[in-house]
Amino acid sequence: MEFSFLTMGTASALPTANRYPSAHILTVRERLFLIDCGEGAQMQMRKFGVSFAKIDHIFISHLHGDHLFGLFGLLSTMAMAGRSGDLHIYAPESFGRILSFFMEEFGEGIKYKIDFHPVKCKEPVQIFDSRQLEVFAFPLVHRGETYGFIFKEKTPQLNVHKHLIGPHNLSLYDIARLKEGNDLVRTATFTDEDGSVVEYEETLKNEDFTYLPYKPRSFAYCTDTMPFRRLAGWIKGVDMIYHDSTYTKEYEDLAKSTLHSTSAAAACCAIEAGAKKLVLGHYSSRYKSLDTMLEEAKAIFPETYLAKEGMKFEIELEKFK
Amino acid sequence: MEFSFLTMGTASALPTANRYPSAHILTVRERLFLIDCGEGAQMQMRKFGVSFAKIDHIFISHLHGDHLFGLFGLLSTMAMAGRSGDLHIYAPESFGRILSFFMEEFGEGIKYKIDFHPVKCKEPVQIFDSRQLEVFAFPLVHRGETYGFIFKEKTPQLNVHKHLIGPHNLSLYDIARLKEGNDLVRTATFTDEDGSVVEYEETLKNEDFTYLPYKPRSFAYCTDTMPFRRLAGWIKGVDMIYHDSTYTKEYEDLAKSTLHSTSAAAACCAIEAGAKKLVLGHYSSRYKSLDTMLEEAKAIFPETYLAKEGMKFEIELEKFK
Repeated sequence: MEFSFLTMGTASALPTANRYPSAHILTVRERLFLIDCGEGAQMQMRKFGVSFAKIDHIFISHLHGDHLFGLFGLLSTMAMAGRSGDLHIYAPESFGRILSFFMEEFGEGIKYKIDFHPVKCKEPVQIFDSRQLEVFAFPLVHRGETYGFIFKEKTPQLNVHKHLIGPHNLSLYDIARLKEGNDLVRTATFTDEDGSVVEYEETLKNEDFTYLPYKPRSFAYCTDTMPFRRLAGWIKGVDMIYHDSTYTKEYEDLAKSTLHSTSAAAACCAIEAGAKKLVLGHYSSRYKSLDTMLEEAKAIFPETYLAKEGMKFEIELEKFK
Repeated sequence: MEFSFLTMGTASALPTANRYPSAHILTVRERLFLIDCGEGAQMQMRKFGVSFAKIDHIFISHLHGDHLFGLFGLLSTMAMAGRSGDLHIYAPESFGRILSFFMEEFGEGIKYKIDFHPVKCKEPVQIFDSRQLEVFAFPLVHRGETYGFIFKEKTPQLNVHKHLIGPHNLSLYDIARLKEGNDLVRTATFTDEDGSVVEYEETLKNEDFTYLPYKPRSFAYCTDTMPFRRLAGWIKGVDMIYHDSTYTKEYEDLAKSTLHSTSAAAACCAIEAGAKKLVLGHYSSRYKSLDTMLEEAKAIFPETYLAKEGMKFEIELEKFK
């Protein structure tokens, strides 16, 4: 029941010897979601043991090279590795013409189907839906159309407290209705003092007999962006946030002019959203040490962590009994 | 007076965790020439301390992704790093429309001039010419238009043997003419027994008074290609060859069908060309160990070396006195 976020590239526009452009893997159970695909993503994936075959969905936040230029190599490699299943790409609308051009010039060997889902919204909208997970896109504030993504596990089916339903002699149908979240209203009987059977209406309140087996988990991807008021509301209650953290406070002006965030701004967003964990990334190449970056965020939101190439951040499953 | 070849990517079409797609730096004195630019080239360049600013010329052998997909990121990074000087790209003709599309979609911040030199030839042709170096392109045999390149130092100006010209009392003009390779025909005099001055014509043969200060060096880049008869003739006498070595002999059939070479075929080319040194690369991802690859080539051409990411192969300057 893994739910984890692997950071494979923490550089901003200029990569360094150790920091690669943006590329991340969100693992939800057996499924892998690639979020952004900067240059070198496929080599990083090999390095960190990521199986290309398990990726059916790729999310591109925006069409800047440092979030995109690894896609062409990856698509080619997937073809050479014999991929046959459909691949879904979620990206801003104008990715369409980039994909068309790529397919025309380099797509000869690509036999699998690439299904492009243009993202366009001004408020959060659902862009992916499966039995266990849904993904919403929401706009960020950056140069050019940019979207963040929130990945939410769906609320699981309820479990019943066996020791509590025991005395009620419920049918399998009734148990199923409880698990679906319904109250049960049914006709019960009792035998009175003079031996006659009396019918009465009994209500079994769902909340008295059921419990959530685990808390559904969620993750929000918020880069590249400058801070803006509505963001925290859109990702309210999320477990973990990955947030643009291009600069320290010292370069707040530069953050503003380039439409990026400081680590402190990222921390403020995490607090307002009521998140449990904040992961920083997308660091400007000017920083050799990220100590100040981390300190400035931790002073606001203590559960802040620095992303690093190859680092995996897990959201543990909280089980209930 | 460096003349060296740095290999930054030795993978063939499928990169591995340790092998990157094709990208190489030929250093000729202070000048850096980038030869092919597979994905991740800019990160490899950072890793191996290659100065982006010293690269004014990029040579692309052919338009397969593993030789090209690093170029987009590099061009963007050069812009962000403040490049202002012209950049020259030598590539097959159809690179033109790729460059146009790239500039349209991603070129907003690129203020420096990109000068595209389409390569098209059936025999070796000169594509670059400077005071000290010339570069020729020649066709290779591979899927799609593919070119190899030969980099040749020009023959340097001659030096004069000072102790030999001393007795002739030459003017600076005459010395310059000798250095340019001319014989000197001049009127000399001697005084005969009865004291009269006799004029006579004296010829100073250039070869008696001059010598080459060093032997001009050369390097041939031959990938991707299947072996073909004319290649060795075109690169005759070259000091060092980098050659397609995708397979071992075991997979000779695969080499044929994919229009690649075995290491043994590369070695045969090196022998026929009378080269001094052969560097192998572009290995198929099937090989973890390259021992057999190397052995099979060395059995034919002992001065064979395996390229590895970050390895530099030097051609020493042979000086004469």
